[in-house]
Amino acid sequence: MKLSVSLAKRSYPIFINENADFYQLVLENCPATKYIIITNETIAGIYENHLSDWKRNLPNSSLIVIADGEKYKNMRTLNSILDETFRLNPDRKAAIIAFGGGVIGDIAGFAASIFLRGINYIQVPTTLLAMVDSSVGGKTAVNHNSGKNLIGSFHQPKLVWIDTKFLDTLDERQYLAGCGEIAKYAYIGGKKTFDFISENFENICRRDKKLTVEAIQKSIEIKAEIVGKDETETGVRALLNFGHTFAHAFEKIYGYGTLLHGEAVTLGIICAVKLAERTNLIKKKRASIIKSSLKMLKKPVIPHKVTSNAIYRAMLSDKKKADGKLNFILPVALGKSQIIKNVDKKNVISVLDEEFDSWIF
Amino acid sequence: MKLSVSLAKRSYPIFINENADFYQLVLENCPATKYIIITNETIAGIYENHLSDWKRNLPNSSLIVIADGEKYKNMRTLNSILDETFRLNPDRKAAIIAFGGGVIGDIAGFAASIFLRGINYIQVPTTLLAMVDSSVGGKTAVNHNSGKNLIGSFHQPKLVWIDTKFLDTLDERQYLAGCGEIAKYAYIGGKKTFDFISENFENICRRDKKLTVEAIQKSIEIKAEIVGKDETETGVRALLNFGHTFAHAFEKIYGYGTLLHGEAVTLGIICAVKLAERTNLIKKKRASIIKSSLKMLKKPVIPHKVTSNAIYRAMLSDKKKADGKLNFILPVALGKSQIIKNVDKKNVISVLDEEFDSWIF
Repeated sequence: MKLSVSLAKRSYPIFINENADFYQLVLENCPATKYIIITNETIAGIYENHLSDWKRNLPNSSLIVIADGEKYKNMRTLNSILDETFRLNPDRKAAIIAFGGGVIGDIAGFAASIFLRGINYIQVPTTLLAMVDSSVGGKTAVNHNSGKNLIGSFHQPKLVWIDTKFLDTLDERQYLAGCGEIAKYAYIGGKKTFDFISENFENICRRDKKLTVEAIQKSIEIKAEIVGKDETETGVRALLNFGHTFAHAFEKIYGYGTLLHGEAVTLGIICAVKLAERTNLIKKKRASIIKSSLKMLKKPVIPHKVTSNAIYRAMLSDKKKADGKLNFILPVALGKSQIIKNVDKKNVISVLDEEFDSWIF
Repeated sequence: MKLSVSLAKRSYPIFINENADFYQLVLENCPATKYIIITNETIAGIYENHLSDWKRNLPNSSLIVIADGEKYKNMRTLNSILDETFRLNPDRKAAIIAFGGGVIGDIAGFAASIFLRGINYIQVPTTLLAMVDSSVGGKTAVNHNSGKNLIGSFHQPKLVWIDTKFLDTLDERQYLAGCGEIAKYAYIGGKKTFDFISENFENICRRDKKLTVEAIQKSIEIKAEIVGKDETETGVRALLNFGHTFAHAFEKIYGYGTLLHGEAVTLGIICAVKLAERTNLIKKKRASIIKSSLKMLKKPVIPHKVTSNAIYRAMLSDKKKADGKLNFILPVALGKSQIIKNVDKKNVISVLDEEFDSWIF
């Protein structure tokens, strides 16, 4: 005897430098019985006035402040967020506001996804990286000893509020890390995006406001389109992991927080392009253009060299593997990448061996 | 500037006493790179041969065994399941098989929902309660000190395999607890279901095989229809919580595992019917039929009396409240219930006061 169950669909808005009050849009798009703002110590210090203003204008709002840094993005911090949230005794119509960078967005979004089996949440990204990438698409997670973002869920925010004013207080290192995620879209967003990003990357890195807003918008458009096609990454969404198979291994091996996520992505992009070249995935004529685009990237300083084999082992524990094999997202043309399976380990090791020498300063 | 993201839809089969091999259906409906069977010590002991058979026939299968009981359904056990799962190094195409009652289904399903942001899982319920209710519908959870099932997710299984042979080893108390969840459908599944269940309840409780299978099928049909309309309980799905506002408070106040969930539901059903009568929600003529149907229920022995106020406070921490107020699902006709808001506290307390005296033996 066989019965079956069928299920439904939804969507949400992303506001970029919208000329409106934040709390007005929150009240319209995400009415709630309580608002629980989750942020970190650094943001809470810098934006004390903002927070007071929101708390005045959003009914029944409270603040949960966690320690700042990727190394706190774990089950332990998640448990403390959940315990504190229960103490506030919210019901299912309460909403969480994630106010911060990728770490805050990921862990607060994850808490929202499992608290009372899921309450609404709002993403207010304060870093460039979170604006162009992690605040949109509903990926939430914490890290596990075994690797990055290994425990989490897909839980779409009710709205995303991007205000590039928050970038004014972002330090140089964090800003350039965000540029690393923007660069990613050059390799997956089509020829026009490739051209726009490679032509303007210098000025985006120098914080040109108009170009930065344009880059954020283009990045999110590409991301929203991909996420709309494949919310839970069973196919095309994997393209958004361009550079990330390498990046997650770098982050894991150096310890979370040593390299910023966007810095690891920058290094991952370099490796992905070099790997595509080595495995003859890109036609020669284009290879030189794609390779020369790497010059725009702002390489971080890595703390020390590790063996390429150790990096490879770290990659094997990442969730991007399937059937026990590593998948890489590699460029095949200008602005176009593909999911490549069964890449020869030797080629991956050679790329790492070659690259490490040029990263140590 | 405003962008937006749109998302999609899915469904899954439930097999009841299907004349086929379990592992054949698993391989067809849920192909995976690894199968991780999660069960408890009791089931692992009783069904050692079954488990050996599955492990032989399902590629790369492993077993995770947790302690038996509702009191282990918490974040601590969840963490140990996750740690152990990571040690098995599965990829995103691995699947979890939840083999056991409601506790196993809830916690294994929750682990599956957050492991690598969600992997497939299969429900193989071994208790009557899990067969008629918790194995279908995708509600997964663990308990928190603040209350029952407060941390969890909606994660639909890939398939549900119901084999009533597993009921043969179920003890009397567990079996009757399951009958409590069947009784629930009499109050929400329409007049025909009300008639079927009230006419046959005695024989179902006496383990009549044909009637039990029919009751399971009818229960799941009702549940699947409701879940299909409202997966995440924003409306009509709340009907499935008939009796549960009371039940969760009883479970919390006596300590998880003291009363079985189905026993608490039985008491909750009695309270819900009495509350509907007290608040004049049911027409007099029907009230007597509905009330007389309560005679069929197998009331559990409660350990000791607690104050009605303490029960009411426990209800207030349940997630079924909205806008800070308690919602009750109360009968309004034969086989029909509604979500009733703003029930006067006095009436709830009176019902509890009255009932407790008749429950103490």
